[in-house]
Amino acid sequence: MKTHIHVITPIITEGFRSEEDLRACEGPEITVTQCGIAYGPASIECEFDEALSVPGILEKAIAAEREGAHAVVIDCMGDPGLAACREALSIPVLGPLQVAAHVATMLGHRFTFITVLDRLRAMIDHLVAGYGLTGNYAAFHAVDVPVLDIAHDTRKLGSLLGEKALTAVRDDHAGAVILGCTGFMGLAEVVTQTLREEGLEVPVIDAIPLTIRMADALVRCGLTHSKHIYPAPGKKEIRGYDNLR
Amino acid sequence: MKTHIHVITPIITEGFRSEEDLRACEGPEITVTQCGIAYGPASIECEFDEALSVPGILEKAIAAEREGAHAVVIDCMGDPGLAACREALSIPVLGPLQVAAHVATMLGHRFTFITVLDRLRAMIDHLVAGYGLTGNYAAFHAVDVPVLDIAHDTRKLGSLLGEKALTAVRDDHAGAVILGCTGFMGLAEVVTQTLREEGLEVPVIDAIPLTIRMADALVRCGLTHSKHIYPAPGKKEIRGYDNLR
Amino acid sequence: MKTHIHVITPIITEGFRSEEDLRACEGPEITVTQCGIAYGPASIECEFDEALSVPGILEKAIAAEREGAHAVVIDCMGDPGLAACREALSIPVLGPLQVAAHVATMLGHRFTFITVLDRLRAMIDHLVAGYGLTGNYAAFHAVDVPVLDIAHDTRKLGSLLGEKALTAVRDDHAGAVILGCTGFMGLAEVVTQTLREEGLEVPVIDAIPLTIRMADALVRCGLTHSKHIYPAPGKKEIRGYDNLR
Amino acid sequence: MKTHIHVITPIITEGFRSEEDLRACEGPEITVTQCGIAYGPASIECEFDEALSVPGILEKAIAAEREGAHAVVIDCMGDPGLAACREALSIPVLGPLQVAAHVATMLGHRFTFITVLDRLRAMIDHLVAGYGLTGNYAAFHAVDVPVLDIAHDTRKLGSLLGEKALTAVRDDHAGAVILGCTGFMGLAEVVTQTLREEGLEVPVIDAIPLTIRMADALVRCGLTHSKHIYPAPGKKEIRGYDNLR
Amino acid sequence: MKTHIHVITPIITEGFRSEEDLRACEGPEITVTQCGIAYGPASIECEFDEALSVPGILEKAIAAEREGAHAVVIDCMGDPGLAACREALSIPVLGPLQVAAHVATMLGHRFTFITVLDRLRAMIDHLVAGYGLTGNYAAFHAVDVPVLDIAHDTRKLGSLLGEKALTAVRDDHAGAVILGCTGFMGLAEVVTQTLREEGLEVPVIDAIPLTIRMADALVRCGLTHSKHIYPAPGKKEIRGYDNLR
Amino acid sequence: MKTHIHVITPIITEGFRSEEDLRACEGPEITVTQCGIAYGPASIECEFDEALSVPGILEKAIAAEREGAHAVVIDCMGDPGLAACREALSIPVLGPLQVAAHVATMLGHRFTFITVLDRLRAMIDHLVAGYGLTGNYAAFHAVDVPVLDIAHDTRKLGSLLGEKALTAVRDDHAGAVILGCTGFMGLAEVVTQTLREEGLEVPVIDAIPLTIRMADALVRCGLTHSKHIYPAPGKKEIRGYDNLR
Repeated sequence: MKTHIHVITPIITEGFRSEEDLRACEGPEITVTQCGIAYGPASIECEFDEALSVPGILEKAIAAEREGAHAVVIDCMGDPGLAACREALSIPVLGPLQVAAHVATMLGHRFTFITVLDRLRAMIDHLVAGYGLTGNYAAFHAVDVPVLDIAHDTRKLGSLLGEKALTAVRDDHAGAVILGCTGFMGLAEVVTQTLREEGLEVPVIDAIPLTIRMADALVRCGLTHSKHIYPAPGKKEIRGYDNLR
Repeated sequence: MKTHIHVITPIITEGFRSEEDLRACEGPEITVTQCGIAYGPASIECEFDEALSVPGILEKAIAAEREGAHAVVIDCMGDPGLAACREALSIPVLGPLQVAAHVATMLGHRFTFITVLDRLRAMIDHLVAGYGLTGNYAAFHAVDVPVLDIAHDTRKLGSLLGEKALTAVRDDHAGAVILGCTGFMGLAEVVTQTLREEGLEVPVIDAIPLTIRMADALVRCGLTHSKHIYPAPGKKEIRGYDNLR
Repeated sequence: MKTHIHVITPIITEGFRSEEDLRACEGPEITVTQCGIAYGPASIECEFDEALSVPGILEKAIAAEREGAHAVVIDCMGDPGLAACREALSIPVLGPLQVAAHVATMLGHRFTFITVLDRLRAMIDHLVAGYGLTGNYAAFHAVDVPVLDIAHDTRKLGSLLGEKALTAVRDDHAGAVILGCTGFMGLAEVVTQTLREEGLEVPVIDAIPLTIRMADALVRCGLTHSKHIYPAPGKKEIRGYDNLR
Repeated sequence: MKTHIHVITPIITEGFRSEEDLRACEGPEITVTQCGIAYGPASIECEFDEALSVPGILEKAIAAEREGAHAVVIDCMGDPGLAACREALSIPVLGPLQVAAHVATMLGHRFTFITVLDRLRAMIDHLVAGYGLTGNYAAFHAVDVPVLDIAHDTRKLGSLLGEKALTAVRDDHAGAVILGCTGFMGLAEVVTQTLREEGLEVPVIDAIPLTIRMADALVRCGLTHSKHIYPAPGKKEIRGYDNLR
Repeated sequence: MKTHIHVITPIITEGFRSEEDLRACEGPEITVTQCGIAYGPASIECEFDEALSVPGILEKAIAAEREGAHAVVIDCMGDPGLAACREALSIPVLGPLQVAAHVATMLGHRFTFITVLDRLRAMIDHLVAGYGLTGNYAAFHAVDVPVLDIAHDTRKLGSLLGEKALTAVRDDHAGAVILGCTGFMGLAEVVTQTLREEGLEVPVIDAIPLTIRMADALVRCGLTHSKHIYPAPGKKEIRGYDNLR
Repeated sequence: MKTHIHVITPIITEGFRSEEDLRACEGPEITVTQCGIAYGPASIECEFDEALSVPGILEKAIAAEREGAHAVVIDCMGDPGLAACREALSIPVLGPLQVAAHVATMLGHRFTFITVLDRLRAMIDHLVAGYGLTGNYAAFHAVDVPVLDIAHDTRKLGSLLGEKALTAVRDDHAGAVILGCTGFMGLAEVVTQTLREEGLEVPVIDAIPLTIRMADALVRCGLTHSKHIYPAPGKKEIRGYDNLR
């Protein structure tokens, strides 16, 4: 059986992410499809942006399950809409922050999170607390690059991330590093290399490939999120959101 | 100075809450106004409902600040949209769960939360964890009455809440009880009476009146939420949500 | 109805605090009265001082309830005698640290506490832990000024507090600042201004005005501390403490 | 060298405790002396009683150090005045709850606390939290016997304690039991026997003998509490408390 | 690329586990091999048994890496030797408890652990605490069947596990169930069915298949445990343990 | 009665520790004996070394009980084999880290741990978490001296430890310092002196003498670890480890 993992990039910006980008995450046994959302923000950099992305995510997630996907991955480190999607769907829905934080804890006990903007600090703290991992969360750092500028100079970005990763290991005593924006996909190698040159062998987590593999693993083990914790929404009147009624 | 507190009931159902209901929360120094939302769900009973209520809440909250309100109160114990509204507004935005949980902790150290449906357990656990109060959260109980049926038989409802409150004190060893649905407004007295008849003097928190008073207190002390933690959303393209661009 | 809040300044020093100081905390609906204690220490700067202030506080708190006050506020950030007073009284008794720490958590998630002397660190840590808020406590700083020297140079003091507040936001990543001595009353504005000049909008909590407003809010909502958690002391022989028998 | 441990029973009641009672805690290398307090309550059953016992304890503790004792033990499971005494003294001051809770954690990981009255629950919870051991605190039980009635029927009391101890092991899954009133001294054996008859080998902690031995161990290792955490009180005016100035 | 996962069953008993048992965990892209240990205990039911299994596990784990395995899985829910193996190896080493506990937390927030014997309670509590997941650990139950008797009557065992799983969901409010002995492999389906018949859709985790898939996912993402946290042992004299020098 | 405490130094290196070294821990009422292990590592500097030391420790611990010792102390700050020994023995078995961490918490609330090598950080974090004391653990520092080089220049070592102790108090705000290698025995005095010269009175814990005294205290109070938490291993086949069958 070939699993079909559907990735939802929860922004309206074209070209930020394409199915092509995710080819490397496929394999003989995994197909990956991808889409953006029809309405919502151009990028996600705060709780306000997240809130406006969720109805659009729900629409795409429900469609993906209906069209036969085996699992859904939300392509944003803020895991927007994770709980709401799990209520609406029966197939596994995963957020990359949750997966990355748990795997980082398993591999390195304490992790540092390196993301785009310092203003995300409280939001990430809050999410990590909700996942029960505050005790394993070493530190938060930001490279001060807005989401939509990530692609402008990936070489410089890799170097900034490398510096923060060195701080993570030396000063935060982190055992693992999470690349804290899904726009950083593909940069784990250069960060790992920067650490290795200093004699530091520390896992650097590129969350989207990992989350796709985790989704595949769950599907093959017959596991999904608890419908007792995330029960299906009751039938009721909804105004607006035509595709969600 | 008279403070103006605006209450947003985050559902589309007419008649569930009216300004009239909130008259008792006013005073010579406080004016309370109220509105529902233009689009969203008929009631809030899960994360999915919450997600669909937030854009409608944001629209009304932004309008309230523009029209001169001194503070906004979200009229749902799930505190939907609290963080997003705080980013979008400079005046205080309060959620009744956060206020009730902190005040219950101050008055009785550990609190039990009694709400409509058992399916809300994980959502409330998650919110309480996010507020940092898991250690003060004694237990969760539900009376098994859907939100829109609350008004059908308030006498029976008061009796069910009273029973759960006795359990809260005797078995959970809670020092305070939170009425866990804003639709329970006005029932604190009967629950307090039930406890008192058993010799138990325990605060029973009716969150909306308390949150309105807390909002007034903050306004008069010149305090609002931290804009460093809840920074204003950046300017960016948004599709859909015409009133939020 | 006008609420009557009685403030007990738990020291024997005359002139440190007067009813005049608290006029700004009054309103058309709130009357504030104030007194010192008859026996105890000249100032409170450690656990020993606290211990010697409590019998004197109990005497004044019991008298205040008997004379018709609606609530009692203890005017010291160490909240001396809070639990004992709550046992002895039925009207709300509030301590400014507990109120400030909970409100700071609500508004800014994590708070820094800035007080007079470094030697208070362990005492404050212990109190915050008892209130269940260790996870929201970012840092402790001291300006190194003894309590009874606060009034000597408030301009310099304001400047010292401003510097520590900048550290609180930039280095501790605190979302709120608590002025950690009730003798700092009135200095929140200058500290807020210092932060604002650096573009930082962060709540600075002046605990006594806030606690008075919180007391008023509780009284108006018919709430007091749990008598199940703070039961009235049993009748028994007491030697010494004539007014407490 | 023979160590001299001084035990302060923080009540005014004669006959509740005598030096004779503590003979079994002595040894060829340990002398134990004991005294009551000159002013304070007849028994300690709440925070109010504790507050009124502390000045009297301080007086006796300071005298004990001056007279050459090597360590002071406070003879009440509420550890009244522990922090204040540590500030006032340089020799070790120990409270039986703190010692018992730490040793119980070491020997059995999680402990149940069995005391006289249910009304002490919140006070004990608060103390255990302050010691940082909430995670190791399995449960609280009370036998519903006032402190001054303990001696009336020790056979029945032993049987009540035994029942609660069985509950502790079977239902709370506690690995250790703390006898939660220093008035229970001498009853560990019967409780241990009750458990043993059911095949349960669980440490039952009689806190006073253990705390005396712990005090001796610290003295012999040259250890005392941190004076950095418990610095000596500053010199200042004190009204009342003639012996404490 | 086909990944090669090597499973070490850390007991000397023949026939408890065979490579045949693990065929269902293989796939077109995964090969699974298995071995027991050369010296150690017949089964693992306590810390003593664990301690005696670790040198034997280390020997086999080192050999597996040398022979080209891509990852090692320890086939016991006590995760014996996990940290020591991670120090000795560079390829991923996974323990089924750690993986199951993290995945259960992701899927259901709080999990109940159901194992063979009640005597394992403290050991499991300790392991879960070490993984940082105490806050997500709902409860522990045992079916009271020794490890080597598991195969005697799997029908009855399935029924016992099903009963405990119902308790887990209804009384512990767990969102996920972990089958707490690797000898329970293959019984997840019957337990899931028991829950489903009561209308409860809750993930039941069969840890070995899941851990094998997780190992595969890590290998494909180029991830392994942090060698900064688990540094290679220094060269030094070792007496005994000829194969480990 | 004279108590007999047996100390097991869990390495094969001769001369690292002798009974002579422990004379100062004896007294008129305490006899101390000591031994190394017959097989295992030359020193303990990681989890791998620990694992290989445990069977050798078990052998010696079982022999000590059989030969009449009243308690066993494991002479390594990693507390290797503590849980396994407690299962195998009925007399108290103590580890110096557990005892030191609890006593440091009692005396100074938060402690800093100063040891030989930075690579031990994760291992110590893990042990402290298992003991439930993470909230009281201020910081970890290492002097960067391998275990077997400790004796080379104790003067320099004392000076390095003193520097780290100053950092512990000033920067970590620790209230107590734990000397984190049993090879540091005897150096507490010089470290205490270094602190005292800077006006800092902070307990510096030399764990082995303290643990021996604690063992004596437990024996005299008739206490041992809970056999309910550490039940005796079941009878079963063991291969290898002839002396442990």
